[in-house]
Amino acid sequence: MPIQLLRQTDQPLYLQVAEQLRQQIENGELAPHTRLPASRILAKKLGVNRITIVNAYAELEAEGLVISRVGSGTFVAGEQQPAALAPSPLWRGSPVGRRPWNANQMVAEMMRLARQPGVISFAGGSPSSEFLPVHELRRALNEVLRRDGVAALQYEEAAGYLPLRETIARQMQQQHIPVNGQDILITTGCQQALDVTVNVLTRSSEDNLVVVEDPCYLGFLDILAARRLTPLGVPVDGQGMQVDRLEQIILRHRPRLIYTTPSFHNPTGTTLSLPRRRALLEVASRYGVPILEDSCYDTLYYEGEPPPSLKSLDTADIVFLAGGFGKTLAPGLRIGYLVAPSAWQERVIAAKQTADILTSPLNQYALHSYLHSGHYADHLSLTRRAYRERRDLMAAAARRYFPQEAVWRCPAGGMYLWVEMPPSGPTATDLYMAAINYSVVFALGSVFSASNSFSHAMRLNFATPALDEIEEGMRRLGKAWKELLARNIRVQPVNQRCTMPIL
Amino acid sequence: MPIQLLRQTDQPLYLQVAEQLRQQIENGELAPHTRLPASRILAKKLGVNRITIVNAYAELEAEGLVISRVGSGTFVAGEQQPAALAPSPLWRGSPVGRRPWNANQMVAEMMRLARQPGVISFAGGSPSSEFLPVHELRRALNEVLRRDGVAALQYEEAAGYLPLRETIARQMQQQHIPVNGQDILITTGCQQALDVTVNVLTRSSEDNLVVVEDPCYLGFLDILAARRLTPLGVPVDGQGMQVDRLEQIILRHRPRLIYTTPSFHNPTGTTLSLPRRRALLEVASRYGVPILEDSCYDTLYYEGEPPPSLKSLDTADIVFLAGGFGKTLAPGLRIGYLVAPSAWQERVIAAKQTADILTSPLNQYALHSYLHSGHYADHLSLTRRAYRERRDLMAAAARRYFPQEAVWRCPAGGMYLWVEMPPSGPTATDLYMAAINYSVVFALGSVFSASNSFSHAMRLNFATPALDEIEEGMRRLGKAWKELLARNIRVQPVNQRCTMPIL
Repeated sequence: MPIQLLRQTDQPLYLQVAEQLRQQIENGELAPHTRLPASRILAKKLGVNRITIVNAYAELEAEGLVISRVGSGTFVAGEQQPAALAPSPLWRGSPVGRRPWNANQMVAEMMRLARQPGVISFAGGSPSSEFLPVHELRRALNEVLRRDGVAALQYEEAAGYLPLRETIARQMQQQHIPVNGQDILITTGCQQALDVTVNVLTRSSEDNLVVVEDPCYLGFLDILAARRLTPLGVPVDGQGMQVDRLEQIILRHRPRLIYTTPSFHNPTGTTLSLPRRRALLEVASRYGVPILEDSCYDTLYYEGEPPPSLKSLDTADIVFLAGGFGKTLAPGLRIGYLVAPSAWQERVIAAKQTADILTSPLNQYALHSYLHSGHYADHLSLTRRAYRERRDLMAAAARRYFPQEAVWRCPAGGMYLWVEMPPSGPTATDLYMAAINYSVVFALGSVFSASNSFSHAMRLNFATPALDEIEEGMRRLGKAWKELLARNIRVQPVNQRCTMPIL
Repeated sequence: MPIQLLRQTDQPLYLQVAEQLRQQIENGELAPHTRLPASRILAKKLGVNRITIVNAYAELEAEGLVISRVGSGTFVAGEQQPAALAPSPLWRGSPVGRRPWNANQMVAEMMRLARQPGVISFAGGSPSSEFLPVHELRRALNEVLRRDGVAALQYEEAAGYLPLRETIARQMQQQHIPVNGQDILITTGCQQALDVTVNVLTRSSEDNLVVVEDPCYLGFLDILAARRLTPLGVPVDGQGMQVDRLEQIILRHRPRLIYTTPSFHNPTGTTLSLPRRRALLEVASRYGVPILEDSCYDTLYYEGEPPPSLKSLDTADIVFLAGGFGKTLAPGLRIGYLVAPSAWQERVIAAKQTADILTSPLNQYALHSYLHSGHYADHLSLTRRAYRERRDLMAAAARRYFPQEAVWRCPAGGMYLWVEMPPSGPTATDLYMAAINYSVVFALGSVFSASNSFSHAMRLNFATPALDEIEEGMRRLGKAWKELLARNIRVQPVNQRCTMPIL
């Protein structure tokens, strides 16, 4: 492990040490699980202060290249977590922080590609730009600034603008959720509602495991990775999360939280059946495990309303209900909300305030004015009709252009068609690369799994693209797949590190 | 430790256990440092599943009432951290999470009181409502929605709207900070810039200590508490942070980060001198300790510009520069920014995206349009003139109405006058309670200290109130203080738990 330090450069010594160790790890000179010298010893050898080495190791740990274990030292990270740390057979993959993609890279790539002229994107999670109520929101903003301009531009209560919270509470009461405005925390998008919940529920414990559907919304997997929490994946079938597995998981792993999107799940589109909703609440209540219910797609239903929300069925007061207006109205407002169980309401407000003080009151006032204009119900009807038509077109195109062995379920709501291509054929990554040449982008199924599973799955957004783009994009995807098959592309091993460039 | 469980109620068993333990802790039946029974044993005794007890203990731990130590068990928390855990003599106070106040409670109280008719508030951190450019921002919003309505309401790149980032970069270039737009991350207020920085810098390490000025911006102390990090306070004098103490602290405690507000520090109003800025950079670079520079008051100067920012002097690329438009333009836009050292830029973008996906593009577009209108420079001149006048009036009133032994320094910028009342007299908490009867509110000095110090200090905001309110409010404060003194109010012990109601 030779390390050479230059004293005459601007680069701090600890970064020089980190860089040379990084190279040795990446080129294999330092093999996985190798124990690095104690910081004292390496410092003495190099003639530097021990802090230099401690900081170099911390740098490498932040990058996920080494792991430090209290009392035993610092080790080169392996592709697999050491057996002693692996919490469960359900956790099938690589260590936290080593997922080949994160939401950031995915979304960055998707945004960049989707802006290229001529690209057909099935990749994102945006609502259709066609229906954004620009005019009505502009009217609302003007009304607010004329009437309440100073208040809308000043600080506001951290929990949010009370009239907006009361309006949201009334919508919830219609869904038999017994809340009032004071119970509602306004968040900066639904994402912050999820992050705040994870924050307050996982502060105290050492073994922080969180139950998720597998696959799962990738922004939630990012929250877990950022907080060094471990996802425990529960498989999903046509009825949603396989709830009958939960009791064993709870008894064995004592999870801090169960995260679920019961209606029109992202990415699979499935809906948790009513019996399973009741069973989930029963088992979670029995063991006192909180549930975080992500309701952000609930109002995008195409075959009638979904079963009652978990929150409306929750007699034990253990459900955190998160939602927002990004998928159903306008992502750019960045307004979501969270209803926490009563014992947690003060703590979620404090956590939200610590994160960003408050959500833009300007946008809160404008949303409140818009919701009172009465346009929202019409807007939802319009988008539901349009998205249902797109869903049907995409499903028909999948039947027409995809191989017979491909598997998908037509979702009863939401934005996504989840397609599993035949496991004997090209992987989704192969198809992704080939599809870029046809100017079509989609989301790889594997990014939604903490475990690197779903190598042959893809998530196709049918809400964002226009009708003619759906037909044409699906045709090109089918063509790309057939070409790969004809070229006899070898199936790649599931666990390989994804090496394609982030475009 | 008798515990009685009811099986016929809706309340989960673990909450029943937690509640009864909580009562026993709070009424003293369970003394500080008492070891609770092992979960296995208590579970057997009560005839419940072990998970019930584990969850009850976790609930109490989340509330800060018990502490669990791996391998040794769960203990009732004490008023003092056990000596073995106390990281430093500089950490003079109560365990993390046990500060008597947090920003949330402070701001909630301040907002509530300030809304009462007739109350004069020196407590908050708001800019004056008089100068909010409502009309210009409304014009900017309309321009944006006419021209770019769909883009402003859709998702946007996580790092922010590039033209806005380029505009901010040009402002920085004028201050000799060599950045371009790509180096700038737009955040949801300056608070998120601080939180994101702490997040990326403290993920990997076990001993997470952070150097702060003592006293320190209380929202930053909340960030540390929420992430279970320990502040190491460095005293502040007329030249700002006492930088000569840093080397010893770094060598002894290996902090992950040094947080500072070098210009017009909140709450003391002090400015770090140029020699100390250079010394701070030198010592931090030598040991590779990153600096987080909070610049949110930099443009509010009343005696000429402050010394060059740390970022502009930073040749080792170790400074994270955080700033925002909340103090200088409009809090309600919720727009801040962060310039990270180049090695950290990808990671801060990912952390920001995990927190809330992106900052409202509507507000970003509008701010960009406003900044291009050319009104901002005039707005800053106007507010600087007005705030300087208010500062001078408040300082004159302090001379007139406060006791001779009271100590303050006239700040060269920012929003706050920090006043230390004579230590032999009533505490600031006494004065706070008395002042409420006179309809005057201020911020207690002790909330800005992780250590519960500054029992006789108060922070007075001179920017928010109108001129006549300053004169009248200071007169009432002086009167309240004299009455307390005349009634011979006993000096309260510094470490007592603050028991006054949150109004």
